[in-house]
Amino acid sequence: MKRIESIKNPQVKQWKKLHTKKERDKTGTFMIEGFHLVEDALKSNAVIRELIMVETVDLPANWNVDNQSIVLVTEEIMKEISDTETSQGIAAICEQYNDRKDLTSFSKLLLIDAVQDPGNLGTMIRTADAAGIDAVIIGEGSVDVYNSKVLRSTQGSIFHIPIIKANLFQMIGKLKEKNVKVFGTSLKNAVDFKEVSSESSFALIMGNEGNGVNPDLLELTDQNLYIPIYGESESLNVAVAAGILLYHLR
Amino acid sequence: MKRIESIKNPQVKQWKKLHTKKERDKTGTFMIEGFHLVEDALKSNAVIRELIMVETVDLPANWNVDNQSIVLVTEEIMKEISDTETSQGIAAICEQYNDRKDLTSFSKLLLIDAVQDPGNLGTMIRTADAAGIDAVIIGEGSVDVYNSKVLRSTQGSIFHIPIIKANLFQMIGKLKEKNVKVFGTSLKNAVDFKEVSSESSFALIMGNEGNGVNPDLLELTDQNLYIPIYGESESLNVAVAAGILLYHLR
Repeated sequence: MKRIESIKNPQVKQWKKLHTKKERDKTGTFMIEGFHLVEDALKSNAVIRELIMVETVDLPANWNVDNQSIVLVTEEIMKEISDTETSQGIAAICEQYNDRKDLTSFSKLLLIDAVQDPGNLGTMIRTADAAGIDAVIIGEGSVDVYNSKVLRSTQGSIFHIPIIKANLFQMIGKLKEKNVKVFGTSLKNAVDFKEVSSESSFALIMGNEGNGVNPDLLELTDQNLYIPIYGESESLNVAVAAGILLYHLR
Repeated sequence: MKRIESIKNPQVKQWKKLHTKKERDKTGTFMIEGFHLVEDALKSNAVIRELIMVETVDLPANWNVDNQSIVLVTEEIMKEISDTETSQGIAAICEQYNDRKDLTSFSKLLLIDAVQDPGNLGTMIRTADAAGIDAVIIGEGSVDVYNSKVLRSTQGSIFHIPIIKANLFQMIGKLKEKNVKVFGTSLKNAVDFKEVSSESSFALIMGNEGNGVNPDLLELTDQNLYIPIYGESESLNVAVAAGILLYHLR
């Protein structure tokens, strides 16, 4: 068990850097905070590089940390590396999901095109997990999935469901080769979602909060769906719309 | 047209107080900010007490403000009364919705029990509007619906759909007298939502993020529904769940 007492330790600086996407991309790692997320990481297949704990924190008795590399730190250090206002005194450095071989086994997918709001992206991952979706594919132009606000909004689902960053044009091509039915979401040239029935294999594309799904992607789909608006609101929140469609299609 | 130039003007102090629930309750008014919300207020039946504008702001040509009481202010004053980081230079003081007579005409309602997160409450109001629900009833213990974060999350739906603060126990009693079918949401003693069919008149109760709907309310319902979790997530976000159920029931 390692112990770090100085806030000037280079390791502390390194952890802090993980609040930037650049450093997360470079290292292929990300930081999670708090008991809930760390517990989900421990219970999942996630690779945990380091478990970081304030010395005075007691681990729950049912946690198995035998094979974990634990680093004890001071409260001051935890505060320094934490992104939350009141740290629970526990954090972990995890490896980003990177198993692309899985792809062939997925039959229900959520594809995300340029979703900007961390809360929306995290909630969509949580919703996809709940709906029993096999994987979430994140296209270019979305907020980074390893952003701390996204991670918190997933409520742990980041560790329950494979999250793969990929080019959506290529992804749609591959899915169609596998005869997975690809649904876009759009207000134009689209059918009411209630007119399609549930599918044993499908991919649903949800798009940017303001602009929707990229029209070039919509050209490639098998069918585009819309959710009718019966009142006066202009649109639904993208995570709410994803929930309605995923629970309908599955 | 009134003009206020001093930040010490008592009116400025009064507007600023509207950021507290206490003052909103006392005056029966609330403040909205930005072009989108003010436009929705102007187009709706909302009673606007004052339209507050920075002198240099141009109103869109299609806005009808002939009968509005306009107050011109300095940028400094707008910044002082604004709750956003970058004000658009326009705000309005509106009266809270208070027409209880309507109640008898509602056949599709969303009842909200102790929802705490402003984003969740606002998104649920937006979703209820989209789903063509007649009114949203807010029980005790929920975040104040006239909180600025709730208002922003409604994306204008606060002006499209009646929002009524009421005691949910009494409300359920009244609805049952009118033969409106009342659905609770619960993980225990509940049926899969897909087993119930759409209803011409119904009330759906959504509950607190952590604890769900008050068990005493669940005792009073006609039926309690749950949304199955097919993956490993513990639950759905409450606004996502509301969307799935409202679009299923309507």
